[in-house]
Amino acid sequence: MTKITVSTAGGVYDVIIGAGLLEHAGDTYRCLDGSSEGGTAAVITDDIVDGLYAPRLEASLKAAGYNTVKFVIPHGEASKNPEELFRIVNFLAENHLTGSDTVFALGGGVVGDITGFAASIYLRGIHFVQIPTTLLSAVDSSVGGKTAVDLPSGKNLAGAYYQPNLVICDYSVLDTLSDEIFADGMAEVIKYGAIYDKSLYPLLPDARTKNIEKVIAKCVSIKSEIVGQDEKDKGIRQLLNFGHTFGHAIEKCSGYKISHGKAVAAGMTIMTEAAIKMNLCSDDCLDDLLKMIHAFGLPDKTDFSVEELYEALLSDKKRKGGTITLVVPSEPGRCILKKVSVQEAKEFLAAGLSI
Amino acid sequence: MTKITVSTAGGVYDVIIGAGLLEHAGDTYRCLDGSSEGGTAAVITDDIVDGLYAPRLEASLKAAGYNTVKFVIPHGEASKNPEELFRIVNFLAENHLTGSDTVFALGGGVVGDITGFAASIYLRGIHFVQIPTTLLSAVDSSVGGKTAVDLPSGKNLAGAYYQPNLVICDYSVLDTLSDEIFADGMAEVIKYGAIYDKSLYPLLPDARTKNIEKVIAKCVSIKSEIVGQDEKDKGIRQLLNFGHTFGHAIEKCSGYKISHGKAVAAGMTIMTEAAIKMNLCSDDCLDDLLKMIHAFGLPDKTDFSVEELYEALLSDKKRKGGTITLVVPSEPGRCILKKVSVQEAKEFLAAGLSI
Repeated sequence: MTKITVSTAGGVYDVIIGAGLLEHAGDTYRCLDGSSEGGTAAVITDDIVDGLYAPRLEASLKAAGYNTVKFVIPHGEASKNPEELFRIVNFLAENHLTGSDTVFALGGGVVGDITGFAASIYLRGIHFVQIPTTLLSAVDSSVGGKTAVDLPSGKNLAGAYYQPNLVICDYSVLDTLSDEIFADGMAEVIKYGAIYDKSLYPLLPDARTKNIEKVIAKCVSIKSEIVGQDEKDKGIRQLLNFGHTFGHAIEKCSGYKISHGKAVAAGMTIMTEAAIKMNLCSDDCLDDLLKMIHAFGLPDKTDFSVEELYEALLSDKKRKGGTITLVVPSEPGRCILKKVSVQEAKEFLAAGLSI
Repeated sequence: MTKITVSTAGGVYDVIIGAGLLEHAGDTYRCLDGSSEGGTAAVITDDIVDGLYAPRLEASLKAAGYNTVKFVIPHGEASKNPEELFRIVNFLAENHLTGSDTVFALGGGVVGDITGFAASIYLRGIHFVQIPTTLLSAVDSSVGGKTAVDLPSGKNLAGAYYQPNLVICDYSVLDTLSDEIFADGMAEVIKYGAIYDKSLYPLLPDARTKNIEKVIAKCVSIKSEIVGQDEKDKGIRQLLNFGHTFGHAIEKCSGYKISHGKAVAAGMTIMTEAAIKMNLCSDDCLDDLLKMIHAFGLPDKTDFSVEELYEALLSDKKRKGGTITLVVPSEPGRCILKKVSVQEAKEFLAAGLSI
């Protein structure tokens, strides 16, 4: 088992990573919450994860003396909307959860994002535990406190910075993921190597087998270091957006049919191609990246045109005034932040796509 | 003009109090936001305040170089719901507000609470200015960062702690308030005297005329001192709930037909009666309180029964586990926090009502 302590302005909490942690989640949390008995645990999950892992979590919480209630949302990004958010919040209210009770998010990024947002606003914030069940949520969305729902105008446009009280990452639950969904999470793993620590790369060929704990722990450590310095995305945290500015545009152009991981993989490649063309980094950056992206069957390009992607980019919430902060590779394992006009961003897009 | 600086964990900002400030709101905010030109100002108001004061605010913002957009909600507590919240958030998204733009809440407590909540969640938080147009919002809800909407289960059950960047309190706009609405705000003013500073009382007979600036400034100073020590309502801030625990129960029993101020006035009286009966304070506390409450035509009792109020009390969000923190007078101008079981709270109710 590995324990990583995340320390942000909004809260200090542990991420524990190991196999079989779900069975002990109740006792683990009982030790943390400091009470000897009682309390309500509201489990929020989706209709796929519910059948696979909710009974195990509920049994563990009950054995530790918690009264449990459960709310199941339909799986998939379409659930990450304001109506579903308030269905969860109303469920907490109807079950009379108080400021000393706790909400457990059991699922991937969608469940974690919407549940964290609900926990942040119900009674202006109650206790919250993340139990990620996908690689993507284990290495990325469950840590760092970004919660959100989507709006008709775009993804993640409404949300809160709200740190969990605990993250329980039981990687044995990743065994039920298809290779495709696992690969989706690998895009974020590869990103950590590209922006912060290229020593991650040699671990990746065995990421799904013997190196899984090391890989997750390394990614969480990197994320913890970054969000510890910049909880609210004003500076260094924006490095985590590598591949995401163009990636979001690809997702949007596809009507969200292209998955987040695939879009980010293509987005990272396009940005690296552009950086090389503009003499901002060497070919090594691309070689490393492509080796990893191809190993996990992730795409290194997109069929959308510069114009299509640029239109999608303009509606991205990260556009502060008329500028965009791009994350640009500078050497293998390092990126820099580059504030550019939207016109310059279009030039990066054009350079990255004209292969 | 009086300026009071509020310093909380969530932000430091000024509350400026004066006559005719609305005409200068644009320039005032331009000085604060540090930019020389441009930017969008989204004005959120209700359908009564819109006709009275929105044109003046919009003209001032435009004169200072802001692009303005406006969203009008129906007046009254019924608007403080999740659907209206997301209508505002979607309006901000559709108008492409970015992280460097600003939302202005022009109105009373309902407009301030829902607009602050919307500003806190749109893009996980954008700039926010409060311009209170009622006495209640001037002395209470516009300062301290509590934002919320109501749920079917109860008032203010979903929200955020989100401090504004500036509060502009132009008390000349209070001239259009009816005596009844003004008195509603006076209940909160009287509360500050009872919990923190009885030197407020001698100012109150002329609160609506020559003492208005002093009265508002004194209330805001007290609130600022309290929320500066305890932004998130874990301790001393709960003093601000004096009269509110029973007051909320009265409001709820009336189906929210009894106004907040009237309910709080009755709630303060009931609690003080109970404290005297239980030898927790002297008769002086009640004498002072009643003199002020009667001067503004506020009620000192309720027709609801102990049982009815107790049922309403049980669903209050402040019930943490099986306990309630009551705010109990100890001497004129001082209250203490008393954590009691729900059963003991019922005894207070019974003692306070059995006159």
